[in-house]
Amino acid sequence: MAELSRRGLLTGGVAAGVVALARPAAAQAAAETVVPFHGPRQAGIATEPQAHAVFVAFDLREDTDKDALARMMRLLTDDARRLTQGRPALADTEPELASPAARLTVTFGFGPGLYARIKAPSPVKVLPKFSVDKLDKKWTGGDLLVQICADDPLTVAHALRMIVKDARSFATVRWTQRGFRRAAGTQSAGQTQRNVMGQMDGTGNPKPGTPEFDLAVWRPDGTTQLVVRRIKAELETWDAADVVAKEFTIGRKLSTGAPLTGTKETDAPDFAAKGAHGFPVISEYAHIRRAHVGDPSLRILRRVYNYDEGVTSQGHADSGLIFASYQADIERQFTPIQKQLAEADLLNEWITPIGSAVFAIPKGCDEKGWIGQEVLS
Amino acid sequence: MAELSRRGLLTGGVAAGVVALARPAAAQAAAETVVPFHGPRQAGIATEPQAHAVFVAFDLREDTDKDALARMMRLLTDDARRLTQGRPALADTEPELASPAARLTVTFGFGPGLYARIKAPSPVKVLPKFSVDKLDKKWTGGDLLVQICADDPLTVAHALRMIVKDARSFATVRWTQRGFRRAAGTQSAGQTQRNVMGQMDGTGNPKPGTPEFDLAVWRPDGTTQLVVRRIKAELETWDAADVVAKEFTIGRKLSTGAPLTGTKETDAPDFAAKGAHGFPVISEYAHIRRAHVGDPSLRILRRVYNYDEGVTSQGHADSGLIFASYQADIERQFTPIQKQLAEADLLNEWITPIGSAVFAIPKGCDEKGWIGQEVLS
Repeated sequence: MAELSRRGLLTGGVAAGVVALARPAAAQAAAETVVPFHGPRQAGIATEPQAHAVFVAFDLREDTDKDALARMMRLLTDDARRLTQGRPALADTEPELASPAARLTVTFGFGPGLYARIKAPSPVKVLPKFSVDKLDKKWTGGDLLVQICADDPLTVAHALRMIVKDARSFATVRWTQRGFRRAAGTQSAGQTQRNVMGQMDGTGNPKPGTPEFDLAVWRPDGTTQLVVRRIKAELETWDAADVVAKEFTIGRKLSTGAPLTGTKETDAPDFAAKGAHGFPVISEYAHIRRAHVGDPSLRILRRVYNYDEGVTSQGHADSGLIFASYQADIERQFTPIQKQLAEADLLNEWITPIGSAVFAIPKGCDEKGWIGQEVLS
Repeated sequence: MAELSRRGLLTGGVAAGVVALARPAAAQAAAETVVPFHGPRQAGIATEPQAHAVFVAFDLREDTDKDALARMMRLLTDDARRLTQGRPALADTEPELASPAARLTVTFGFGPGLYARIKAPSPVKVLPKFSVDKLDKKWTGGDLLVQICADDPLTVAHALRMIVKDARSFATVRWTQRGFRRAAGTQSAGQTQRNVMGQMDGTGNPKPGTPEFDLAVWRPDGTTQLVVRRIKAELETWDAADVVAKEFTIGRKLSTGAPLTGTKETDAPDFAAKGAHGFPVISEYAHIRRAHVGDPSLRILRRVYNYDEGVTSQGHADSGLIFASYQADIERQFTPIQKQLAEADLLNEWITPIGSAVFAIPKGCDEKGWIGQEVLS
């Protein structure tokens, strides 16, 4: 224990030093906090998740045909190209809010309805109905998705406003979902986040820059696929459970995120390990067993956000997870995992999927191109 | 089950200890980012505004008498004392979320209804009706106010949940309002913030640590008074106005925040200056002229947050300002300013007050005391 605390303090000193250096130079930081917009793949996917996000889904207006869609995507690409670099949009009515970029990314996705409109086959299909789903129309579906992420909430608000203003003559807003993670600088980069239920979330994520990541997330043409699901946390009953029950449900220690068979978060779970009475240490129905995927190419990239909205008069939270995962092939990667979880995940007692949507994510573009060009022209 | 729960609590306690040790960067950084809770005045007022806030107002339950109020405030003070220092609340069900504190402050206020309940004279009165008001009951009034601010949104969410859970047997939630400012590190400390309309907001604020601040904000007994108003921004029409019209309305340059008679944000406005045609450079009806207060002891401390909620299907924002101001005496300081603004502020065309509440802010307490002790015992 003494050893632990000494190591903790030492590491703490170094890490805090880095934080202290990284924080004061706000102006200087702005230069470092621009995420490139152009490239073969869209930003906002392999990008280390920013602190704030809004996902906005649109329904196309009746008269928005293929030509109109191309005009819209030219316009929105131009907005994204400027805003992500900390510059005002072309007809920006609040140009003062365009800087700092605060690692702003704007990522576009096309739903099945968009492909139907242009009479083209959709790369993504609406998910099958899972037994646990209690989907509300107001959080479900959408023809066009824009994921806006930045480390600053005012930057997100401004980008959202510009994008919505330029999209609205082509489409109506179907839903918006706002979410957050730990503020920039609160944790070190790459450290696993906790969600509103207190669990570490995303431990098993493929790591950007590895061959496993590329295999799991990207298709050869630079596209990928996105699932967005709104998962309500039943915090009242979750809080009534004790630590032992919670850890049994998840299969991990709440404090460290280590699997019940290990000591560190990064330890691989030993699903074969048996306890004193011959029962598996990690239950057959524990969340990490049900969600486990052996083949690295079949993993998904969780890029999730917490939500926390109004409180009821009786003091009950409206809180949970904006589950967002990127994967090369939803049907091959996401759907089997979700089926396994729906069948028998202990965590189902405390979470309820209330929204669901799928989108194909077009490839990136260069200075002269626009997002969706290969689909819409 | 009793055994299990007790084990649960024990494990929880140990786990919390381990968290503190196992999260070195956070623990060390926390040393820099903890705002002291104890003192003659409550924190969260002179504190440099944090990036995130939630204001939650409660109505007392019918059977909550003076004794119950004292019990409630003991409990909530204990929660605030621990949480603000990055430690779990006593019965914290998500102890892992208690650190880092991220400059968390929890500030308590008492509305007129609380004083009526204990048959004591209220230091604050409901504001007179202003001609511009379109108050919605769901954002107005409240017997008890808790202002929760931190630089991290998950820290705010966790503190809110703990406070609400401990308050709810004594009170129901009347409203919650969530707001944001620029993220920590995005701007340098003390730099004036812009609101969702793009204006700099708070230029004329008294500066903490000056005699003017103490005179304007604090009463001799360490108490102060808080006004919270929800001000909807009419962004559709505001965006339709051009820069000249916007600057004429405000009386300041949008780009620099300088008064129209100056070059720097900090320049004092010259209200006597006349333009080419003999008209005042800063209009008689400009916002900064109407809001101007000559006597420093009559100024107010604006501690405002932006809000940005759902977007309508037609793409219109629900966005504006959570106006929060602290002053020694609402009737002497806030009300005359608001009257002047209501009579003839050009900005009224683009903003609408839709919520309003006033609270007396009790003095601070020491290690053995609790907030509100002098009122409730």
